[in-house]
Amino acid sequence: MAAKVTPRGEDYSRWYTDVVLMADLADYSPVKGCMVIKPHGYTLWENIKAGLDRRFKETGHVNAYFPLLIPLSFIQKEAQHVEGFSPEPAIVTVGGGKELEEPLVVRPTSETIVGHMYAKWIQSYRDLPVLINQWANVVRWEMRTRLFLRTTEFLWQEGHTAHATSDEAQEETMRMLDIYADFAIKDAAIPVIRGRKSEREKFAGAVASYAIEAMMGDRRALQAGTSHFLGQNFAKAFDIRFVDEHNERQYCWTTSWGVSTRMVGAVVMVHGDDHGLVLPPKLAPVQVVVVPIWRADDEQAQVLEAVAKVEKMLGDTVELHVDRREAYSPGWKFNEWELHGVPLRVEIGPRDVRQEQVMLARRDIPGRQGKTPAPMQGLVSTVQELLVTIQANLYQRALDFREAHTYDPSDYGEFAEAVSAGFAYSWWCEDAECEAQIKADTKATVRCIPMDQEAGPGTCIHCGREAQERAVFARAY
Amino acid sequence: MAAKVTPRGEDYSRWYTDVVLMADLADYSPVKGCMVIKPHGYTLWENIKAGLDRRFKETGHVNAYFPLLIPLSFIQKEAQHVEGFSPEPAIVTVGGGKELEEPLVVRPTSETIVGHMYAKWIQSYRDLPVLINQWANVVRWEMRTRLFLRTTEFLWQEGHTAHATSDEAQEETMRMLDIYADFAIKDAAIPVIRGRKSEREKFAGAVASYAIEAMMGDRRALQAGTSHFLGQNFAKAFDIRFVDEHNERQYCWTTSWGVSTRMVGAVVMVHGDDHGLVLPPKLAPVQVVVVPIWRADDEQAQVLEAVAKVEKMLGDTVELHVDRREAYSPGWKFNEWELHGVPLRVEIGPRDVRQEQVMLARRDIPGRQGKTPAPMQGLVSTVQELLVTIQANLYQRALDFREAHTYDPSDYGEFAEAVSAGFAYSWWCEDAECEAQIKADTKATVRCIPMDQEAGPGTCIHCGREAQERAVFARAY
Repeated sequence: MAAKVTPRGEDYSRWYTDVVLMADLADYSPVKGCMVIKPHGYTLWENIKAGLDRRFKETGHVNAYFPLLIPLSFIQKEAQHVEGFSPEPAIVTVGGGKELEEPLVVRPTSETIVGHMYAKWIQSYRDLPVLINQWANVVRWEMRTRLFLRTTEFLWQEGHTAHATSDEAQEETMRMLDIYADFAIKDAAIPVIRGRKSEREKFAGAVASYAIEAMMGDRRALQAGTSHFLGQNFAKAFDIRFVDEHNERQYCWTTSWGVSTRMVGAVVMVHGDDHGLVLPPKLAPVQVVVVPIWRADDEQAQVLEAVAKVEKMLGDTVELHVDRREAYSPGWKFNEWELHGVPLRVEIGPRDVRQEQVMLARRDIPGRQGKTPAPMQGLVSTVQELLVTIQANLYQRALDFREAHTYDPSDYGEFAEAVSAGFAYSWWCEDAECEAQIKADTKATVRCIPMDQEAGPGTCIHCGREAQERAVFARAY
Repeated sequence: MAAKVTPRGEDYSRWYTDVVLMADLADYSPVKGCMVIKPHGYTLWENIKAGLDRRFKETGHVNAYFPLLIPLSFIQKEAQHVEGFSPEPAIVTVGGGKELEEPLVVRPTSETIVGHMYAKWIQSYRDLPVLINQWANVVRWEMRTRLFLRTTEFLWQEGHTAHATSDEAQEETMRMLDIYADFAIKDAAIPVIRGRKSEREKFAGAVASYAIEAMMGDRRALQAGTSHFLGQNFAKAFDIRFVDEHNERQYCWTTSWGVSTRMVGAVVMVHGDDHGLVLPPKLAPVQVVVVPIWRADDEQAQVLEAVAKVEKMLGDTVELHVDRREAYSPGWKFNEWELHGVPLRVEIGPRDVRQEQVMLARRDIPGRQGKTPAPMQGLVSTVQELLVTIQANLYQRALDFREAHTYDPSDYGEFAEAVSAGFAYSWWCEDAECEAQIKADTKATVRCIPMDQEAGPGTCIHCGREAQERAVFARAY
């Protein structure tokens, strides 16, 4: 009855799509490249939002909302920005039954319209900093799309801040990168490398872009969040100026930073296994599922009584679901909830009732090894501790996996092998042509130049010139 | 220094716009008819969202997300729907630099795309009911726009449910209408009339539409939420069918329901006064503001010490803001926070410190009458009780206002006077031509046929024919 996902070892790409569709995270939509986020996937996204939004607010940010539709001329104001975004937007040319005088772009990102408003709102140094975030949908006309990873429309948050000095703006850029890393590590249980993007990979219009990069289950890299120091580029394009303490007019320094529904794809690929989705307890829509088990009719009443007792004990402390459906067997339910990634399963059968215990089955350790009996007495703290253990185990496992597949190749031949097997952590000269040649040779790109590294110099892995820093190279999503 | 809002008695429409702009709820955007929701307005919207979302989830609904862009052909599938929406949409004709084969509509509402997906997801009676809500932006090409009340783009939630029987779908329609009324009354402190829309005013494609209607400060009506029983109209247009218990294929019965950022405009108009915004405590971004007062330098330390004490006492129990800015006078701050609608102000001066008290100033009762001293001892419960009192007073005041301006005219002459002074609650024959004539004569429309009313029959206020029910007539936003 229950369909099975394609094993990862057989076809990773099909495995991913199977899990997203079968675990009810998302579905294809009738519009090319757009997806429908189903309730299970959307609740996961709501939990991601809550974890990020809390961190934004704790650091003084507030939410606002800017219009979806942006005059085409705005996109063209910042020279590098237009180059980066001009081929991609969806364009509204008709409104209210008439051809529009100026076409409107469905926002691919909001620096331009935010910049326009900031120019109006910011007058004096007293108005600074402005620390605004927006939760919104954006549209980019992507050619090759994949559920969550690259879709024509996606959901995200985009922070836009304005500051009086370059230092403050750079501090903010780093603060948000750290917040993203903190969220990824603590809530999503995803180890990430914080680093600077190469010139080639940076955001269109940024002075410097930073990202958190993670290793997926197929050892490819995924950029899971970005934070951009925009310098005065957008301030000059949109005339965002303030009068400083000495009564002089100056351009602001701005930043922008974003995390999108792509994070859902990262969670799937970092933790998932051949049984389906595996969710970190901190983000799971359902943290604990209770499955009652009985064969004979006379067992039913006593089992359901114990189930009700467990529901009462745990209901207020964890996100609990009790699966009382009678049309499905316990075995079918086990598969179903494993597929949907629920971190912990509580099984209650007649023997458990007699022994005043339940059976706990960890999703992160499938099969017999992950199963242990637990007395009813003290079940609340047993379950809470186990959820903490599962969260920690998922992180450690992902970290071990990344470290096992991160290499320090000694020459370009080894480098080529390394990037086909995982990450290469290598000295690099930062030359764009060198980067392009590496990509042409190996399909690997500079994922980032990590913040946390020892000082150079060293020798560029490709061209042999002197290099000041190491970079992480990998094939990427 | 502090600019003043236009008095309501002078020009209500300008008063409204002044309050929205000066209280930092929203600003105009460079795109005609679109607005920017500023942080203060957006936080108010977040609080509205939280109050509604909690109620949706308590009644078994889950959130999901459907695509922004809808094939034009979808909108044309339901005959009445296309008539209602065809002139309004914004249409994307270009994507990725190319003319699209089929133009895409920026969703004006999502019944069509949701219907398409439900047809795919729903197979059996076991899949029903489907109870999904979506928080999203929508675009309707409105000709005359006003901040929050009618904007080209607005934010809302749209619930879409599918059921096995007509009864269940009708129950759901009523359940959501009741939830909207409960939210409006308890959280927004807005008295509302629950009722059925006339045939002329119902949603394009609905069998029956229901709404909550409220009286604004200028005695005009505003529809603050709608709930539609769609019968099998959309199910037939999109082939949403299920196999029932007897193994027969049947069309589903569907509903949809929505509340939008219009609710923010309702809060402004129901509670606001000539000093600006007045927010009900349950929705206020800042519930209590503390303003320290000192003249001489030697007073400053002791006042700020008391302020810190109050901050510590209240900080965990209410949404508190302490205004420590030294560049502004206490009087300026009073005006500023009144303008922004903060329900309760705590003033602390040297005399208060000596007397171990604070001064509390209620926003709902401006001036001396709303000011009382309160001992530091027991301040937490004093403040909490006062917030409850303010919430209740705002509701009662709005209810009294509505009742004072609701009339039971005895003839059509009195009726015309009534609808220029408030609501007329009159017998009506439910004939569309009769309704059109009333509108032509008086500019008043049928706001709704209230659910809670005594049985007829009576005599139609306009044509004199027999009428089964009374309707609320008013000029409306």
